[in-house]
Amino acid sequence: MGLNAAKKIIKNHLVKGEMIPGEEIAIKIDRTLTQDSTGTMAYLQFEALGIDRVKTKKSIAYIDHNMLQSGPENADDHAYIQTVAKKHGIYFSRPGNGICHQVNLERFGVPGDTLLGSDSHTPTAGGIGMLAIGAGGLDVAVAMGGGEYYLNMPKIVKVNLKGRLGEWITAKDIILEMLKRLSVKGGIGKIFEYVGEGAKTLSVPERATITNMGAELGATTSIFPSDNVVREFLRAQGREKDFSFIEPDADASYDEEMEIDLSSLEPMVACPHSPDKVVAVSELEDVKVNQVCIGSCTNSSYVDMMKVAHILKGNTVSEDVSLTISPGSRQVLTMLSQNGALSYMIEAGARVLESACGPCIGMGQSPSTGAVSLRTFNRNFEGRSGTKSAKVYLVSPEIAAVSALTGYITDPRQMGTPFKVEMPAKFLIDDNMVVDPSRAGEDVRVVRGPNIKPFPVAKPLKDVLNGKVLTKVGDNITTDHIMPSNSKLLPYRSNIPYLSEYCLTPCDEEFPAKAKKNSGGFIVAGENYGQGSSREHAALAPLYLGIKAVFARSFARIHRQNLINNGILPLVFQNVKDYEEIDVMDELEMGDMLKQIDGDTIIVKNKTKNKEYNMLFDVTQRQRNMIKYGGLINLMKRNSL
Amino acid sequence: MGLNAAKKIIKNHLVKGEMIPGEEIAIKIDRTLTQDSTGTMAYLQFEALGIDRVKTKKSIAYIDHNMLQSGPENADDHAYIQTVAKKHGIYFSRPGNGICHQVNLERFGVPGDTLLGSDSHTPTAGGIGMLAIGAGGLDVAVAMGGGEYYLNMPKIVKVNLKGRLGEWITAKDIILEMLKRLSVKGGIGKIFEYVGEGAKTLSVPERATITNMGAELGATTSIFPSDNVVREFLRAQGREKDFSFIEPDADASYDEEMEIDLSSLEPMVACPHSPDKVVAVSELEDVKVNQVCIGSCTNSSYVDMMKVAHILKGNTVSEDVSLTISPGSRQVLTMLSQNGALSYMIEAGARVLESACGPCIGMGQSPSTGAVSLRTFNRNFEGRSGTKSAKVYLVSPEIAAVSALTGYITDPRQMGTPFKVEMPAKFLIDDNMVVDPSRAGEDVRVVRGPNIKPFPVAKPLKDVLNGKVLTKVGDNITTDHIMPSNSKLLPYRSNIPYLSEYCLTPCDEEFPAKAKKNSGGFIVAGENYGQGSSREHAALAPLYLGIKAVFARSFARIHRQNLINNGILPLVFQNVKDYEEIDVMDELEMGDMLKQIDGDTIIVKNKTKNKEYNMLFDVTQRQRNMIKYGGLINLMKRNSL
Repeated sequence: MGLNAAKKIIKNHLVKGEMIPGEEIAIKIDRTLTQDSTGTMAYLQFEALGIDRVKTKKSIAYIDHNMLQSGPENADDHAYIQTVAKKHGIYFSRPGNGICHQVNLERFGVPGDTLLGSDSHTPTAGGIGMLAIGAGGLDVAVAMGGGEYYLNMPKIVKVNLKGRLGEWITAKDIILEMLKRLSVKGGIGKIFEYVGEGAKTLSVPERATITNMGAELGATTSIFPSDNVVREFLRAQGREKDFSFIEPDADASYDEEMEIDLSSLEPMVACPHSPDKVVAVSELEDVKVNQVCIGSCTNSSYVDMMKVAHILKGNTVSEDVSLTISPGSRQVLTMLSQNGALSYMIEAGARVLESACGPCIGMGQSPSTGAVSLRTFNRNFEGRSGTKSAKVYLVSPEIAAVSALTGYITDPRQMGTPFKVEMPAKFLIDDNMVVDPSRAGEDVRVVRGPNIKPFPVAKPLKDVLNGKVLTKVGDNITTDHIMPSNSKLLPYRSNIPYLSEYCLTPCDEEFPAKAKKNSGGFIVAGENYGQGSSREHAALAPLYLGIKAVFARSFARIHRQNLINNGILPLVFQNVKDYEEIDVMDELEMGDMLKQIDGDTIIVKNKTKNKEYNMLFDVTQRQRNMIKYGGLINLMKRNSL
Repeated sequence: MGLNAAKKIIKNHLVKGEMIPGEEIAIKIDRTLTQDSTGTMAYLQFEALGIDRVKTKKSIAYIDHNMLQSGPENADDHAYIQTVAKKHGIYFSRPGNGICHQVNLERFGVPGDTLLGSDSHTPTAGGIGMLAIGAGGLDVAVAMGGGEYYLNMPKIVKVNLKGRLGEWITAKDIILEMLKRLSVKGGIGKIFEYVGEGAKTLSVPERATITNMGAELGATTSIFPSDNVVREFLRAQGREKDFSFIEPDADASYDEEMEIDLSSLEPMVACPHSPDKVVAVSELEDVKVNQVCIGSCTNSSYVDMMKVAHILKGNTVSEDVSLTISPGSRQVLTMLSQNGALSYMIEAGARVLESACGPCIGMGQSPSTGAVSLRTFNRNFEGRSGTKSAKVYLVSPEIAAVSALTGYITDPRQMGTPFKVEMPAKFLIDDNMVVDPSRAGEDVRVVRGPNIKPFPVAKPLKDVLNGKVLTKVGDNITTDHIMPSNSKLLPYRSNIPYLSEYCLTPCDEEFPAKAKKNSGGFIVAGENYGQGSSREHAALAPLYLGIKAVFARSFARIHRQNLINNGILPLVFQNVKDYEEIDVMDELEMGDMLKQIDGDTIIVKNKTKNKEYNMLFDVTQRQRNMIKYGGLINLMKRNSL
């Protein structure tokens, strides 16, 4: 049997282990990216590793998250990242140059290479045939230092795309169909490889919309083969030299298979508050809209923007709607500016924001109380917009633009024939907002603002772990719940003591206070705990608060690794009923841990209820060592001794 | 003797009093404007007056301040303002349509008319020959209801402009020269009327830069006669019908005269932290720059932007500088977008922000700790940028753009011949982002977000006022000190209880706590207390905290009126030495107030020091009544009984 595209790349980068689903493997990382909300911590960790220059082919630090700058913290972090990058051999994409994933597609991504990024939407690069994985900042720091990246070999799922998208049906509808079918847990431990005749009809930006939101399936990553469509795209970017074919063998095998008939899809919408609450747009047509936001790493390409511009052209945004547009990159923005399309947007009354994540991460443009906000983004978790009572719907740029004009959620098919936008034969190329690193050995002073505080480092495992259950949460708790991310908190990503005051407060306002009062303790959670963003702050803040273990029915991949990296035990209920039984403030104890840590189950005593539970601890030896020795940094230091 | 231009307008609008400098007069207000940071309160006050429809020729509510929307408060306020405006006959300029003063020049201002605005830079409209005055929101609310506006007749100062500006010398340098000569107190009680051959050479945007920053002189307002230059401007805006000549008689008399030879000026800079700390740019050429911000109601016209675009064209912003550009209005932004100039900015690496106040009011783009920020704005008060340690310099757009490229404060004259920008013969006209009010009688539901709290209303005067001196501050305390305005606090402008927790904290962190502990008390201040922004929150928060009187060496005009409007006594030391003698926590008492209130001096006993002071209370009978009956709202209610 031949290899599929994902396996070909993994095989080329395999350092340890075998490509058997579920088994731990280690792969070499060619390239890394960071953004500024996770980047400050990633570079602090990189510095802690004591490595002088990055050892990757190319590492890039982007500024795209914290660009509102309400107070000096953001600009201080930008200055830190810019100087630390310059010192250690990392390229720096200046604020305004665009969203990391969009710029990576345009200017830096290379088919067949591996990319590790401290952002959960790093898989966007699967749209040009990269194996691109989101991870915590520490994993990225290790990769910059030349270390391999460890993961469990995912199952490779063949997604066979048949047919062709109808008018007004988009790539967004394909990934919403995936979410509808599979749910936000449906991709855990999997890589989705999109193939078939339908896949060939999709442009790079369309593919990237799909691989981007693979993150919402919980997938390890998603990928489209690198074919002539990718070649044309890279040629138009002046980068044909970066191209290579990465295609599945004709007889390639997959672990699972599924099929979507593109011609059967209709325009769809993900309803509040989860990307998998997907319904047809026709079911929502009486919903009045207060805000429409277009952009984000999901839907901010040149073609997306051109379609929006032509829908808006000559019209005026409904009196009751605030429409914001954030073009994905400076390349996109400049091209729109040069060809006049930007004028159509401005004339119609769109508020054109910087090329940045913006409203997608709640960094501004929070809607009014109880508002309906239509967004072309990838996540609609409760409160993520900055307005807890807001109802956020996820849609294609076409639905967004049309609805901005009508003031109601609107099926775009009623607009007649859509304006046809061609992929440009040549993009505008100017990398003047990317700062080269210093030459090796050149002296660079790293600027450290007063907001950069030391980060917590785990301690080696104790033989007895005891404490109280500080909180008990339900299923699908996101890292947005664990470590809220909004315009007020994002500036403090390098200040864990401050951030920890908000840890898990969306679920339990008293959590930080309880943790402090009880000198730490435990968290009990339902399924898919830690889904969403890759932020390791969702592990660092609990570490700071003295959390020793999380007992969950299941974990999301990146967060589970972030817990282990920081010496916190992620334990899974063997018996689901035990989850029901444990109450907040129960006193738990895990004894004999220096022995128990080597087993596949760990016994937990509930001293309050006088019961015992078996918790699954299905991890690799390396992960066990991290828990034993107090997290990845301590393990690496120990290994280097 | 003939009349000057200012007196002609005042005479046409005089309702009460005589045009004798220092005497109270009342004038009819033709037009009003509000912005959103003062507007929410102004419309709450308008509602409290119980008037159904505005009685002005035209009243406009602009959204230009709180546009970052970090949380639902801003969007809630926008929805309130939009609906309350619609209900009561007020036009609504939607977010993104531009900065109120720039849009007013372009689309709404009428030479010879009076304009009252709840923004201290309302005098910008003096650039087209309006008599335009900044006032507290309550005064504007009263004017919307058809009430006259009371002020002391200012002295009219003739500023004779001779000669012609040299290359790279700008209108900004003219007003900086004024500030250098006169200081931030130099305009108190005055109107500056700019005339002479030099004045005729200046375009409307240049004139508006000067009248705008007349606010920094403390002037009541500033004005240029309405001449053929204004006619051409209005014609290019499709508004020639709004034009009339308003020129001084040939033999016009003035109260004072001064002269500036434009040909003798050089490029200038206002240094931190006051607009009057003006030096020649040549004195600062080794100052390294971290940030450059271009825009604001002072310097964001089409011509300013075009000059900037051509300086940036083909260049790249210095690696160490963050350059932001906020075009003044959607008209400007659209024209830049259509003619390609916007591309030059974006290509050079400028971060193009929304058409709004933005960084000028600390609404985003706070510089890094200790940074040098060059700004084309009108104020550089300490901390206003959102970064207390930042050093903000005020400059022309030309100096700003050139310095953004070099990375140092740079004399633009070294750039050779400047690119010549012509005033457009026709501006792009599209008012589709201005929402018309409802027809009279039409039912409109006013939307009120949860952040809108009842505002404090003063109580009738008591016979004995006693309490402690809660704080003692120095000269030139701004309303930014009294009621800090930054991106974190601006969203709470309709929530006085919340805001009051920050009242005067830049001068005295403990002030709110002391006020609460002592059930209110007194403030002692130096000269020019309350300069800067018109925000009446600088009176409302002290009112909420129980402040009964402010003892100062002198007051800034708008703030003094705001205190009176809210029933707080503004008293001036007859003997300057008494200021020195009073200490914080001294216990003061003013007895027999129901009699004393009618005199020109009020005796204050210092019970701690066992002394008595004479305080000047030089106000009009109407102002006395406001203090007596508990502020303007109570007075108006009483009068209507």
